[in-house]
Amino acid sequence: MSALPDLDSLKLLVDVGELGSLGRAARAAGIAQPSASKRIALLERRLGLPLLERTPRGSTLTAEGKMVAGWAAQVLGAAQELMRAAQAVRLSEAAHLRVASSMTVAEYLVPRWLGELQHREPDVQVGLDVVNSADVAARVLAGEVELGFVEGPTVPDGLAVRVVGTDRLVVVVAPAHPWARRRTVLRGPELAATPLVVREPGSGTRETLDVAFAAMHRASPRLELGSNSAVKGAAQAGVAPAVLSGYAVESDVATGRLVEVPLTGVNLVRSLRAVWRRGRPLTGPAATLLAIASRP
Amino acid sequence: MSALPDLDSLKLLVDVGELGSLGRAARAAGIAQPSASKRIALLERRLGLPLLERTPRGSTLTAEGKMVAGWAAQVLGAAQELMRAAQAVRLSEAAHLRVASSMTVAEYLVPRWLGELQHREPDVQVGLDVVNSADVAARVLAGEVELGFVEGPTVPDGLAVRVVGTDRLVVVVAPAHPWARRRTVLRGPELAATPLVVREPGSGTRETLDVAFAAMHRASPRLELGSNSAVKGAAQAGVAPAVLSGYAVESDVATGRLVEVPLTGVNLVRSLRAVWRRGRPLTGPAATLLAIASRP
Repeated sequence: MSALPDLDSLKLLVDVGELGSLGRAARAAGIAQPSASKRIALLERRLGLPLLERTPRGSTLTAEGKMVAGWAAQVLGAAQELMRAAQAVRLSEAAHLRVASSMTVAEYLVPRWLGELQHREPDVQVGLDVVNSADVAARVLAGEVELGFVEGPTVPDGLAVRVVGTDRLVVVVAPAHPWARRRTVLRGPELAATPLVVREPGSGTRETLDVAFAAMHRASPRLELGSNSAVKGAAQAGVAPAVLSGYAVESDVATGRLVEVPLTGVNLVRSLRAVWRRGRPLTGPAATLLAIASRP
Repeated sequence: MSALPDLDSLKLLVDVGELGSLGRAARAAGIAQPSASKRIALLERRLGLPLLERTPRGSTLTAEGKMVAGWAAQVLGAAQELMRAAQAVRLSEAAHLRVASSMTVAEYLVPRWLGELQHREPDVQVGLDVVNSADVAARVLAGEVELGFVEGPTVPDGLAVRVVGTDRLVVVVAPAHPWARRRTVLRGPELAATPLVVREPGSGTRETLDVAFAAMHRASPRLELGSNSAVKGAAQAGVAPAVLSGYAVESDVATGRLVEVPLTGVNLVRSLRAVWRRGRPLTGPAATLLAIASRP
């Protein structure tokens, strides 16, 4: 891969497209127009494409610039979700709304929900604890957080529950793995008997797998890792097949970095659920966040 | 929004998670371990979160680091799609496979298809022309490109066609626009009679709209802009409602930056289609790309 562009230059490019001129985009970024022009020139060299139509009356995007701005807007959207989620993790005691989430929900769904909450109620500061599903339930029961999101199959007594999504665990392998080209559908018992790369005990992903395999003969894991990215990395490196949330592998499968292996005879579908203390109806920002999360 | 992180540091963080240690991630990036450590420290300050567990025997990710690595992987995925698509636009005469695509398909679908093609056939260099749907058809007919992707409702004679996706144009407004809170469903004639922010004539998006509105009384556009990002920017700024591809507004609607207005009585669904010269069956990389694009 060529050297990566910097996000500030991508933002500048998107702003030129949206605001209609380099001058306005430079003002929005709080920099002088010549330095804005220099930044775009650097991006042009890096991508090897003319992005800016420079005329005496001002500078606007070329056809290539418009396209790159479209792709750049997607990169920036993902970066903004990262910043918002990181901020929510950072805020803790000071937050107006405290939420706990299991990792898969936190990685793939919570950032967007926070974006919408921030849009609807700009002054609300959300604190986000990311822990495993069992800890989420414990924190909600203990009153440490108002609202939780869990992904495991079991929820303790004393919690009110609403389904906010469905997730399906999928089997993925490196493209060079023999399973990437197998002609027969993989069956549950063969998967159970295969050493896999899996998430750690206590994670919702692992618990779902353990429940699904309960009645089968099982091999020990080849490798146990504490995050979805690490499990994906090991699978891509060819260590062994992995079982992960469909959310976690969606873009890797779309781009061919991982291959999904069709599976039958074992149920790996699970509900993603919001939980709060039974008998304590949610109000204020907690109720708004629940409404956002449970929208179809 | 806080200052954006740099993509190289995000890549380093993802690599620490995937390779299991800072030392290995530093080697993969071709930098010394102390400078890798410094980069992560800067990212820690920017996000306000501890990302690295520094021990005498090596450094691995903290719980926060694992989460941020998950979000970072999504940012990097989008950046890699941008780099791949920009490279394909840059290659032209030297390419082994020349493709033309209309803008919406090029922005939202082609980058992933190219990623998978590059994975399957690493040596193939693709040249991508991004032009409007009418020009795509003309270039395919003239033999300048082997394969094209169009989004408009009409395709000239002499082309073989395969549907590779469905797109629905949607009406979006700024959250503060009265339509964001309207209680009645918007009907086609009211939309047609409203001045809108629209794409330029010749674009597939505009042609779809013009065909759908053909029999209705129409207002002149409030603003005509040459890219999806620019149209979105104008709608977000409250200039007027906009009509755009569902692909183009998906993440803006999910995060509440734009609100989709339910619409009835007008058909804005369209097929996205691959086209090539009739009687000239595709072979080699062109056939592979068509197979990737037409996968359900």
